[in-house]
Amino acid sequence: MKVRVYVRLKAGVLDVQGKAIEGSLKSVGHDNVSNLRVGKVIEFDLESETKEKAKNEVENLCDKLFTNPVIEDFEITFL
Amino acid sequence: MKVRVYVRLKAGVLDVQGKAIEGSLKSVGHDNVSNLRVGKVIEFDLESETKEKAKNEVENLCDKLFTNPVIEDFEITFL
Repeated sequence: MKVRVYVRLKAGVLDVQGKAIEGSLKSVGHDNVSNLRVGKVIEFDLESETKEKAKNEVENLCDKLFTNPVIEDFEITFL
Repeated sequence: MKVRVYVRLKAGVLDVQGKAIEGSLKSVGHDNVSNLRVGKVIEFDLESETKEKAKNEVENLCDKLFTNPVIEDFEITFL
């Protein structure tokens, strides 16, 4: 099955990349953009017997490998 | 309104970051993961009078600033 994982910085964590992009947008006239934040999206195919097993495995991957749980949140979607 | 833009490499373009992650996953026993690709997600608030105007502006931003249209595709979602 096809899995999509979004990884983004937690709400309170300063996103320097997002701030830089927002600043650049404002400097070229896009003043109506605010609260810009940049995250990652990881997509992959996963072979698994049941959806339950797949969910556990992906949560485990996210917790241990894809994210830094101190500063990042993740969101899993099965497509 | 809240806008989410996914930016990912086009299907034929080699994703070295994705390949590296997939290789690492396999080396720690996750052999059931394949076709892993990494993209970006850009989220922001946009002030706009109409949804039509917002759509045009965001498409313009994606084409000219957020992506390299030679190697990247984008997908816009209004939340």
